[in-house]
Amino acid sequence: MEQLTVTTSSKTYPVFIGGGLRHRLSELLCELPQKFTSVLVITDDVVAGNYLSDVLGALSEYQHVDHYIISHGERAKSFQTFYDCQTFALEKGFDRKSAIIALGGGVVGDLAGFVAATFMRGIGFIQVPTTLLAHDSSVGGKTAVNHPLGKNLIGSFYQPDAVIYDTDTLASLPARELRSGFAEIVKHGLIRDASFYEMLKEKVTTAEDLQSFRFESVLKRAISVKADIVAEDEKESGVRAHLNFGHTLGHALEAELGYGRITHGEGVAIGMVFAMKVSEAYYETKLPVEELRDWLEQLGYKLNIPPELSAEGLLERMKRDKKAEQNQLRFIVMKEVGQVETVTIDESLILQML
Amino acid sequence: MEQLTVTTSSKTYPVFIGGGLRHRLSELLCELPQKFTSVLVITDDVVAGNYLSDVLGALSEYQHVDHYIISHGERAKSFQTFYDCQTFALEKGFDRKSAIIALGGGVVGDLAGFVAATFMRGIGFIQVPTTLLAHDSSVGGKTAVNHPLGKNLIGSFYQPDAVIYDTDTLASLPARELRSGFAEIVKHGLIRDASFYEMLKEKVTTAEDLQSFRFESVLKRAISVKADIVAEDEKESGVRAHLNFGHTLGHALEAELGYGRITHGEGVAIGMVFAMKVSEAYYETKLPVEELRDWLEQLGYKLNIPPELSAEGLLERMKRDKKAEQNQLRFIVMKEVGQVETVTIDESLILQML
Repeated sequence: MEQLTVTTSSKTYPVFIGGGLRHRLSELLCELPQKFTSVLVITDDVVAGNYLSDVLGALSEYQHVDHYIISHGERAKSFQTFYDCQTFALEKGFDRKSAIIALGGGVVGDLAGFVAATFMRGIGFIQVPTTLLAHDSSVGGKTAVNHPLGKNLIGSFYQPDAVIYDTDTLASLPARELRSGFAEIVKHGLIRDASFYEMLKEKVTTAEDLQSFRFESVLKRAISVKADIVAEDEKESGVRAHLNFGHTLGHALEAELGYGRITHGEGVAIGMVFAMKVSEAYYETKLPVEELRDWLEQLGYKLNIPPELSAEGLLERMKRDKKAEQNQLRFIVMKEVGQVETVTIDESLILQML
Repeated sequence: MEQLTVTTSSKTYPVFIGGGLRHRLSELLCELPQKFTSVLVITDDVVAGNYLSDVLGALSEYQHVDHYIISHGERAKSFQTFYDCQTFALEKGFDRKSAIIALGGGVVGDLAGFVAATFMRGIGFIQVPTTLLAHDSSVGGKTAVNHPLGKNLIGSFYQPDAVIYDTDTLASLPARELRSGFAEIVKHGLIRDASFYEMLKEKVTTAEDLQSFRFESVLKRAISVKADIVAEDEKESGVRAHLNFGHTLGHALEAELGYGRITHGEGVAIGMVFAMKVSEAYYETKLPVEELRDWLEQLGYKLNIPPELSAEGLLERMKRDKKAEQNQLRFIVMKEVGQVETVTIDESLILQML
């Protein structure tokens, strides 16, 4: 088992990473400074089929355990589901000494985290991620639900009390899901840890590698990058924005295509290649863009912007991003591998590069 | 103008208290370390009629100012109103550099605070209280909405960036509202500042005094008690519970009678007299209960428990309080004036005293 500690201004908590941890939940929870008298597991219908009985079995020491199953997919991150979870927790008698366990990927984590953040003004919250992508979302305390006017518009910063990452659960992920999560791992190298990025390129060279890879130590290193950034800037007033490297275009692609057409990581992969090209123009420098492109294509990523999308439409989306300020385009550019910064960038450059 | 500073683990902010401050909002906001690019005023229909135009006038320096008016009264503290406020803020283009101003009493402050806490994961928040009772709720960062299963069940701890208290607005309050707020002022003396309590008894001796009283310095002292406690224990894991002195029975009375039948402060007044009697029995000591009772009655409070309520019904309510833990009755008892503590108390003693 790998372990690291995340230190933020509001909370310090452990991240446990290892095979079979879903069977050791009670034991790991007992090690925490907070003691919970009852536990509510929130998960989705797909994950429930695979792991819910294991998890409930591992929590049998608690007198009061219950579970609430939401539909899988982005649509469940709604206001209505949020309210339904609250009502369920109240009806079942959960109180201020209870904890909510988010068993699943990013949707479950974001939603269950927002429920935990606001139930009786905040109760215990444990992330139990079951996807590779959730290595990113489960650490750092961003919780939210969607609004018809945009994603993640209502939520809060609420750090978990622990992240318990059972890497066995990654084995059940389809190739496309693994690629989605792996793009964020690559990003963590690109923005802050060049030697980690080089190591990834060496160790994972084909789509098959991705399927058979043992992720423990890689996840620890990727999460360390995230943890360091969150420690410096919990509420995203500065350096935390670096985590959005590749996301400005990535989010725009997801939105223009309609959510679900490409995965988050597929969008981010295209966005990272694009961001590096923009950076070359911005700094008038040379970066290893082709190398990244070739490697990602070897791993099975499709890196071309779908031809049905217009440059103007994508630019408009980028300008409406939650990170935009007074309609100015903020963009994360790369100076060299392992070093990025946030700049205001001219629209015409973006249009030209698109 | 009186001024004090509230220091909590999550935020440090000023409280300004004085006549006419609603006309000086821009000036006071400019003094804050945070700069807001746009401002959304949330208020209720009654307060809007009295003060909204003054407030909007005082904000004319901001390029982007808007307002949203909710119905007055506890019912507006609903999930639906919360969602409607979010939608309005999104449609009007407010962003992460915006601030929400809560212009009103506790309902407006709690609701608008929860909107500010969760809009894009938290934006600026300014409390502009217009009732005496809101001296309590506007400081300390408790925000919430109600759920059909109980009051304040969904919310968060979110400190304001400033509290701007225009004491001129108290002049428009009916006598009953003043009594409601004054009960919390008395509580702040009783739990932690015996000389403040003595001073209040000397200075305010009749219902007419309450109407004509100039509250600046009294509010500063009452808010100081609250601020000290919140500084010690922002998230109510210990000493903050002392603020609930008189509230265990007070809340039960409000709930059993149906909200609105008695004011919050009327309930708390009855609850404080009751808590002192329970304390006499608990410590086998003598406390100045009759003195408090006589004084409050002089000021116009009705201190008898309405005869239609049963002791058993009230006890059940007390046990279901959000502060209850595993059905055990936690109660704030007084050792002497100015000193209280939280204890677990025997139901039979409560039943007997009721």
